[in-house]
Amino acid sequence: MNSDMLIRITRYYRALNRLRAIGLEKVFAHNLADAAGVSAAVVRKDFSILEIHGQKRGGYEITDLIERISKILGKGDPQNVIVVGCGRIGKALMHYSGFEPDGIRIVAGFDSDPIVYSDVSHPVPVYPMSRLDEMVEALDVKVAIITVPESAAADTAEKLMEAGVKGILNFSPITLKPHPVAAGDTPAVIHNINIALELEQIFYQLQFPDGKSSKRTDP
Amino acid sequence: MNSDMLIRITRYYRALNRLRAIGLEKVFAHNLADAAGVSAAVVRKDFSILEIHGQKRGGYEITDLIERISKILGKGDPQNVIVVGCGRIGKALMHYSGFEPDGIRIVAGFDSDPIVYSDVSHPVPVYPMSRLDEMVEALDVKVAIITVPESAAADTAEKLMEAGVKGILNFSPITLKPHPVAAGDTPAVIHNINIALELEQIFYQLQFPDGKSSKRTDP
Repeated sequence: MNSDMLIRITRYYRALNRLRAIGLEKVFAHNLADAAGVSAAVVRKDFSILEIHGQKRGGYEITDLIERISKILGKGDPQNVIVVGCGRIGKALMHYSGFEPDGIRIVAGFDSDPIVYSDVSHPVPVYPMSRLDEMVEALDVKVAIITVPESAAADTAEKLMEAGVKGILNFSPITLKPHPVAAGDTPAVIHNINIALELEQIFYQLQFPDGKSSKRTDP
Repeated sequence: MNSDMLIRITRYYRALNRLRAIGLEKVFAHNLADAAGVSAAVVRKDFSILEIHGQKRGGYEITDLIERISKILGKGDPQNVIVVGCGRIGKALMHYSGFEPDGIRIVAGFDSDPIVYSDVSHPVPVYPMSRLDEMVEALDVKVAIITVPESAAADTAEKLMEAGVKGILNFSPITLKPHPVAAGDTPAVIHNINIALELEQIFYQLQFPDGKSSKRTDP
């Protein structure tokens, strides 16, 4: 499965959980297409690749679809996530309730500032960085969100890897890369979300629709 | 220029501004490669496509590079952005100082809750939604960040388009799509950042490195 298809499948999965939550039992390719921002033909093709077939009268049972897709996506294990850097964005993520429908739980925060980690008003416990190794192991954490300042991001990523974290969602503006690993080992998975970069790209695309800005073409 | 190249160029641009800010005058392909997460060969190739050539002794003048890339990226116009939905994530973005080096300014917030827009402690003015049209025009705003709850996102996007906003960065978990437009018209530019989806993809990639999860292969 390539990454575009994976994105679509996770979007179908999210939409299905929401549809079930509002009491629906059956869904059509067209509904999922709307939710995922693709055409119904793409949904049908994805399902055909995954060997998911609709019913004779059309449509799919939502419960059945959720069960099948959740197996494909490897759901079922606890998806514990920590937030490292409890500034404004980190705090916003600790309070965010939108992860629950996806089985993702923010279980703890970490910060180097005693004022932050001594504050008990956070929705989840916040620990000093010195307890990272211990808590990552205790909470069985594989994935962390980095919301530290730019200058601390690379060092934070190193500490997370050393503590046993395998996946990072990085909100700091520097681009983090996984280290090369020995053959057979699995490299860390790092996704970078750079908000300023996204805005810049929007401005660029508005100014030069279809990349017509440049007379040069890509090789 | 394709979108991968655009992302790299904006990364070079960010890195150059930071390097200049700390007093450097000269930069090498390797420095920019590190900052953008690519190889030095890719940087050199990009620059060759853009007809940017280094100096005989190696390296590039930072000031010169910034000027050239800023022309390519269409910089110079004010890049005013508004935040619609001043909950925790919206507030965090209004306080975020990382946009300034890129010439992006958050100029106002909007919220439907009188408690929020009557609060004068925000770093930028926050207006009621009823003043959206007026303020978008007055502030010459082309791009908005949506940080409203999921249930309000589609409606908010409509209102923004009607007010004259052309570009949207959407943080709500539903996927927003630009409307089809008549031939000759420019469609809106919408980027969706779905944090839960990013985390799900990381979990998936950790569980099934290289997409080996599924016995089916992509067509």
